[in-house]
Amino acid sequence: MKLLKIYIHRLLIKIHLDHQLIKASMNSLADNYELVEELEYRDLMSLKSNLTGEIINRFCHLHQSTDDLIKKVKMQRLLGQKCGTCFQRCVGMDGMNSVYLTTFEIDKAHNTNYHTRFIEYIKESQKKDWVIDGCMTDPKGDRGKRPSQQKDLDVYFHIVEKRDDGVIVRGAKAHQTGAINSHEHLIMPTLAMRNEDKDFTICCSIPADAEGITYFYGRQSCDLRRLDESPEGDIDCGNPVYGGQECLVVFDDVFVPNNRIFMNGETEFCGRLVETFAGYHRQSYACKVGVGDVLIGAAATISEYNGVEKASHIRDKITEMNHLNETLWAGSIACSACGTKTPAGNFLIDLLLANVAKQNVTRFPFEIARFLHDIAGGLFVTLPSAKDLVNPETKGVLEKYFAGVEGVPTINRIKMLRFIENLVLGRAAVGYLTESMHGAGSPQAQRIMINRLVNMEEKKKFAKNLAQIDE
Amino acid sequence: MKLLKIYIHRLLIKIHLDHQLIKASMNSLADNYELVEELEYRDLMSLKSNLTGEIINRFCHLHQSTDDLIKKVKMQRLLGQKCGTCFQRCVGMDGMNSVYLTTFEIDKAHNTNYHTRFIEYIKESQKKDWVIDGCMTDPKGDRGKRPSQQKDLDVYFHIVEKRDDGVIVRGAKAHQTGAINSHEHLIMPTLAMRNEDKDFTICCSIPADAEGITYFYGRQSCDLRRLDESPEGDIDCGNPVYGGQECLVVFDDVFVPNNRIFMNGETEFCGRLVETFAGYHRQSYACKVGVGDVLIGAAATISEYNGVEKASHIRDKITEMNHLNETLWAGSIACSACGTKTPAGNFLIDLLLANVAKQNVTRFPFEIARFLHDIAGGLFVTLPSAKDLVNPETKGVLEKYFAGVEGVPTINRIKMLRFIENLVLGRAAVGYLTESMHGAGSPQAQRIMINRLVNMEEKKKFAKNLAQIDE
Amino acid sequence: MKLLKIYIHRLLIKIHLDHQLIKASMNSLADNYELVEELEYRDLMSLKSNLTGEIINRFCHLHQSTDDLIKKVKMQRLLGQKCGTCFQRCVGMDGMNSVYLTTFEIDKAHNTNYHTRFIEYIKESQKKDWVIDGCMTDPKGDRGKRPSQQKDLDVYFHIVEKRDDGVIVRGAKAHQTGAINSHEHLIMPTLAMRNEDKDFTICCSIPADAEGITYFYGRQSCDLRRLDESPEGDIDCGNPVYGGQECLVVFDDVFVPNNRIFMNGETEFCGRLVETFAGYHRQSYACKVGVGDVLIGAAATISEYNGVEKASHIRDKITEMNHLNETLWAGSIACSACGTKTPAGNFLIDLLLANVAKQNVTRFPFEIARFLHDIAGGLFVTLPSAKDLVNPETKGVLEKYFAGVEGVPTINRIKMLRFIENLVLGRAAVGYLTESMHGAGSPQAQRIMINRLVNMEEKKKFAKNLAQIDE
Amino acid sequence: MKLLKIYIHRLLIKIHLDHQLIKASMNSLADNYELVEELEYRDLMSLKSNLTGEIINRFCHLHQSTDDLIKKVKMQRLLGQKCGTCFQRCVGMDGMNSVYLTTFEIDKAHNTNYHTRFIEYIKESQKKDWVIDGCMTDPKGDRGKRPSQQKDLDVYFHIVEKRDDGVIVRGAKAHQTGAINSHEHLIMPTLAMRNEDKDFTICCSIPADAEGITYFYGRQSCDLRRLDESPEGDIDCGNPVYGGQECLVVFDDVFVPNNRIFMNGETEFCGRLVETFAGYHRQSYACKVGVGDVLIGAAATISEYNGVEKASHIRDKITEMNHLNETLWAGSIACSACGTKTPAGNFLIDLLLANVAKQNVTRFPFEIARFLHDIAGGLFVTLPSAKDLVNPETKGVLEKYFAGVEGVPTINRIKMLRFIENLVLGRAAVGYLTESMHGAGSPQAQRIMINRLVNMEEKKKFAKNLAQIDE
Repeated sequence: MKLLKIYIHRLLIKIHLDHQLIKASMNSLADNYELVEELEYRDLMSLKSNLTGEIINRFCHLHQSTDDLIKKVKMQRLLGQKCGTCFQRCVGMDGMNSVYLTTFEIDKAHNTNYHTRFIEYIKESQKKDWVIDGCMTDPKGDRGKRPSQQKDLDVYFHIVEKRDDGVIVRGAKAHQTGAINSHEHLIMPTLAMRNEDKDFTICCSIPADAEGITYFYGRQSCDLRRLDESPEGDIDCGNPVYGGQECLVVFDDVFVPNNRIFMNGETEFCGRLVETFAGYHRQSYACKVGVGDVLIGAAATISEYNGVEKASHIRDKITEMNHLNETLWAGSIACSACGTKTPAGNFLIDLLLANVAKQNVTRFPFEIARFLHDIAGGLFVTLPSAKDLVNPETKGVLEKYFAGVEGVPTINRIKMLRFIENLVLGRAAVGYLTESMHGAGSPQAQRIMINRLVNMEEKKKFAKNLAQIDE
Repeated sequence: MKLLKIYIHRLLIKIHLDHQLIKASMNSLADNYELVEELEYRDLMSLKSNLTGEIINRFCHLHQSTDDLIKKVKMQRLLGQKCGTCFQRCVGMDGMNSVYLTTFEIDKAHNTNYHTRFIEYIKESQKKDWVIDGCMTDPKGDRGKRPSQQKDLDVYFHIVEKRDDGVIVRGAKAHQTGAINSHEHLIMPTLAMRNEDKDFTICCSIPADAEGITYFYGRQSCDLRRLDESPEGDIDCGNPVYGGQECLVVFDDVFVPNNRIFMNGETEFCGRLVETFAGYHRQSYACKVGVGDVLIGAAATISEYNGVEKASHIRDKITEMNHLNETLWAGSIACSACGTKTPAGNFLIDLLLANVAKQNVTRFPFEIARFLHDIAGGLFVTLPSAKDLVNPETKGVLEKYFAGVEGVPTINRIKMLRFIENLVLGRAAVGYLTESMHGAGSPQAQRIMINRLVNMEEKKKFAKNLAQIDE
Repeated sequence: MKLLKIYIHRLLIKIHLDHQLIKASMNSLADNYELVEELEYRDLMSLKSNLTGEIINRFCHLHQSTDDLIKKVKMQRLLGQKCGTCFQRCVGMDGMNSVYLTTFEIDKAHNTNYHTRFIEYIKESQKKDWVIDGCMTDPKGDRGKRPSQQKDLDVYFHIVEKRDDGVIVRGAKAHQTGAINSHEHLIMPTLAMRNEDKDFTICCSIPADAEGITYFYGRQSCDLRRLDESPEGDIDCGNPVYGGQECLVVFDDVFVPNNRIFMNGETEFCGRLVETFAGYHRQSYACKVGVGDVLIGAAATISEYNGVEKASHIRDKITEMNHLNETLWAGSIACSACGTKTPAGNFLIDLLLANVAKQNVTRFPFEIARFLHDIAGGLFVTLPSAKDLVNPETKGVLEKYFAGVEGVPTINRIKMLRFIENLVLGRAAVGYLTESMHGAGSPQAQRIMINRLVNMEEKKKFAKNLAQIDE
Repeated sequence: MKLLKIYIHRLLIKIHLDHQLIKASMNSLADNYELVEELEYRDLMSLKSNLTGEIINRFCHLHQSTDDLIKKVKMQRLLGQKCGTCFQRCVGMDGMNSVYLTTFEIDKAHNTNYHTRFIEYIKESQKKDWVIDGCMTDPKGDRGKRPSQQKDLDVYFHIVEKRDDGVIVRGAKAHQTGAINSHEHLIMPTLAMRNEDKDFTICCSIPADAEGITYFYGRQSCDLRRLDESPEGDIDCGNPVYGGQECLVVFDDVFVPNNRIFMNGETEFCGRLVETFAGYHRQSYACKVGVGDVLIGAAATISEYNGVEKASHIRDKITEMNHLNETLWAGSIACSACGTKTPAGNFLIDLLLANVAKQNVTRFPFEIARFLHDIAGGLFVTLPSAKDLVNPETKGVLEKYFAGVEGVPTINRIKMLRFIENLVLGRAAVGYLTESMHGAGSPQAQRIMINRLVNMEEKKKFAKNLAQIDE
């Protein structure tokens, strides 16, 4: 693989893995490669490919049953528990399953061969265990205008030249969580297109190191603490090993060969692709249940360190955190258990329940984080840097005054408090709060879908029948 | 069947079906007998018995798979939609499944033969399509004392005499929703008993018309409107056909033959029985999702009758009602989909998720009802009686002033408003609100279980690992 | 006073005070006459008139200071505590203060003499201690059309004939809480009118027994229980002495003499009148804080009768009920304390805060009632009629099984449970819930006002200044 | 003034005002000195001292009326609007008023002369316009033990030596918001003491630069961004000018002369001091209403920059933000308007309402911040550093892709997004969220007070009277 062209805080770096700001994010991703190897998780993390019969990572899998859909969310909860942050590999899996079912339907309608091409692409990705970045969100410019009406057309990803052997594309994809640590970008249109938007109706895959791609690394809360790689820096980071990341990917006239094009101008299928991708990806927020487990664990631990774990209000708040977290889990399970087989053969989650599940994800994590805020006490924002705790000059006095319950080393209390800061205000909060709000579509997007997917006519009929109203 | 001895507002009646206060409740129950006959619902409402191979009503079934558990909740949602109130047959089904699994475990531990007996009992109930009243809640007297410490022992159901051919029992069961319309009372202990409470550890079945049983009919909001059986009375009832009901059942030295005793003194199994029954029954609150559909339908209908259905705040509130209702549904589905096989062979729901689901049922219906309150407008509490609307003297002026949107007969608007009154303040509110709060255990009961069923040690471990705390 | 023409459930009655369905409502009103006499409350309930110097009932007063505004809400909370329901006299006081300030402004603009007339009217009402019904809400017919565009013009109250000595009016006023127990109806336009709606722009006062008025009594939850006037009937009523009521008042060509006309065609002042009346009346929902005190007292009492008052979750829920109730109180106080003097000389509450206060009233009572539902336990909907408790045949067995904690007579527990039913589902619930939702304007009405009254430009400026954005 | 001894991230600095990490915090404080000079705010920010007749800053004032109490909260809202963060001067004002009323009561009971001394101290502070740090919270060590039972007595601030001319004290005060920018520390006991805790019962004042004091600067979310003092650093800071701060103050054997001791061993008055101080300080959270105005302004601005300000769900969310913010304001006003004169002559807020107000502050800011999170869109966590936006190499492409609505310079959109990050995750979030939760006492502290201050007996009486229960 070639080196990527990444801008981080003005610095142009051309490396892949080892910049200190990126490392924690790479660790989160690496985790899912490692857990596959652990016996305990093997059944969840890997399985036999329905295409090749080989053992593959579940992230590269086409769901074959509701049981597969349930295992998907169990895997996501597990990874959330293991890294306490976003692990940046779901989008590709979700993109793959939605492109799979859509290409089947396009081919049927248009006699194209996108589906066959896409199966080949999946086989390769399964074999190479690729991390695929599902690329959907365009910058969008003026939201009051269609793609083809924009002053600068590039604010929507589009084809700038058609050649015999492929196309040249231009544009950008924003909010790309998994872009920097991916092998491929699976490009999908950002919304349902109309006839006049044919050039914007493109689904294709592009290698992460393709000529013409530039990455702009997003800066996030508390990011600079990562630059201090001392043990004290680790403590002040809260979660020293894992982190999320986001970036803008700019595609400046990138070539895509024909065998990597999976949709090209079939505007009437954009809606289907967007809707099913969004559905799969809303299901994927099961990961936040795993991170929720971590917040609950942190609340329970700090209440013990503070010596208040038996207070009835503390116990009740922890029960409520669990209740909310398990309600989220119920959403993950339910939309999976009610999944159905698509014409293409893979399984699609129940779209209504997936939207309902995600809508709760835009709310409960904020409430769970508020409870953690409450239980933690205020010390996590008034505590000096860990540097002061190791400084021989000041260590004594700080250990004296920050001691909690007897038997718990002050340093452990400090570590847990910084970890909590990370979860509710710091880098993990970006994933647990902001991403929960806007990832896979902002709250209003789910409401529009819920409104569309419920059967209101039937419900009105129930009421009228019971009230004995004839119309 | 003999006549029952029922007190209704001081009146001692000895009838079963046709008192005008009871009729609506009997209709709710009858519904599930009738839907079995409809082709559309046959698969949901009936199936082949695993014991006899005969086609039986699902209410008499031992769940054989997670698919069975899911179909159970689908049937319950359907019935809620069809009658807009409690249909009073779930408790027996839930009692049956929990007694089934517990007797198996008792027999294994004690070499008793309760399980075989109970299978015979189930076979008979399946053949005769019995409605069984699951009887658990004792009056309890002074809640600070154990059963055997009560001044009046009868406040806990107990054995007063042991005979060779059976036992004589005494006590009462409170809050009995399905008692009056049942063939049998399946008695279960009300809580986990201790050794000194052996005489209170009794599980058995008693015919509804057994010598020594008296019923006291509960009075409920707006009950007297049912006494007016004119067409206007029907309108003022809101839901003229269906209703719920509650009663106290007093057992005054009733004989139970040996073949109807399924537990007798095995105190250590009371907890298991209570916990699994409560779990199954918390799952059963899926019915409220069906009633929720009716409230949503009523909200949508009245907003159209008022001509405000396109107002953005109305649409948003209806979306929220749907969102909350489907979140409840996700709970019903999830605890079913995560069910597991018991040693006895039937399937038990996921207990944690069933408690989480019910906990939400103690909250969201109140919120959904509040939205209906909001959308309905205040007319449903200021409207004159339907009598005034049919009175030729006043009909004209009232139709003039209560007209809504053009094209909707005023009488339909009135019917829908009275129906809404029924749902949020009247007889159906008792089921949708109060029963949602306290049925199958009050909110705190679920919180205790949630607290017990989550794995807190694991969660603390996740947090400590990530914060790199070694202990 | 002549007899009123009232239809109650088809019955045409011509009485004022003593019909058994109405009596409880009259009691609520009577209360405020009686409390004036009690030394303890004299300062709150009465004061010296600024017009005549005589001692008057505060309900007839023109607020002269923020202290007066604060005393108004204190009086309302007190009355709510004393009768646990709506006492039906606020609307007139609120109408009086808003008509007072508006007539002043009309006179100034138009050289009319409405204000002088109105002062005379107030003097008379103060002297005779009139209950005045503030009449605002028209039936409105098709909400998509203006008053003058309606097919049947009568759905908006309007002038049908102008005479030298006065006008003839026709129409109806809906949701009239205090109509039946009032001496006068103070008619106000229902919304901001336009030029073409001049005939609908009428503010005037009409005696309750005027020729041409008919009343239609609203039927409400559990109303029929009032018909049983036995001691057991009282128990089953829950709150035997007090109740609210609602009715539709139809004005069929009623004559209004000139000296009772306070606005006639000055459409540009309708908005001012509606807005200030709504503001005063939203402040008036302070009464619900008093009723809230009653619900909290009921929760505390029943928890003691059940023997669970020390359980931490019960205590915490009662604390939350208090917290919500006092938050409502803070709203009542704040909009009063921030009141300002109008050009006419009386004091107007802070409109923004009054709308905010009322918006919370559309929410918190539902939450407080839900807590009472929770704390009460389910018995209040499964309990037999009090008739069964006094029946010698059944008294014994019911007292045995419904006994709570030792030392509390079962009958007291029963009374408290029926009282709770009244508060959350019965007749008082109509006032505490439905009226809190829709009285003085439905929730959306307040949101529109809040949106209009906040200074958004200033807030954007704060944000831009801090972010150092120059525009 | 001597230099302070401050540790910031291990660095021992001996400066006062100009360290780049501290500067923004000093600016917040400076603001209140500057606003005094502005004509527009003079009446709010300054007034005539009741002690000396001189014009003083309101922060040094003893409240003389409810009007003064209301002006206090208006000043606090104003300052919150002006700096969007904590301005660190309230605690001293609150301490001053509570010590004033308590010393009066001690003197009356014990014939001491603390009150006279304290008046002299106030006069000096008014004259010199001192910022006084109200120092209450001790580290507390093992929360299960009393002060005198702690293994290390120093975890509670206490007297280690009594001398003729004064005392020597030792201990620490945690979570000190205003310590570093203060002239004096007004020490108060941290809780109600018992007889055996006499040495811990000390109230006194100590100059900030006294021998023996060390400061440990707290590290907070995104603190390191402050180190970059370039214009781009300012943008990335979000709020470049203002910030809060926190520290631990350690007192290592500091001498306090007699004339600065205001309580010494009178344990029975600790409760009074703590309770009134907490009450005043809970009122002071009015500042968060001002910061709330800033969040609302940011929400409105970004919705315009994104071109979605007319979407009904956006408008509705902003209305809700305003509603919540004004509900907080109602709490601030209400507890002030219901204030009463103390025996010492200054005015005390209504304690119940102040606790209720603060309890809402532990909730609504989290909800308001969640709405801002929602309205902002996800860009504020995926956006590159401002460095990339000014880099000529990348400026063009970023301006192209981050353009919002036409006419708004991209840089303004970026500035507003970073400002939002600051408010919901960054340094201002520490004040708006964490401090709102725990400042002036954590949520449970207010619940205990609410529970204690409401009159439950009266409420039970209301309910029993209405249900006609005689006991």
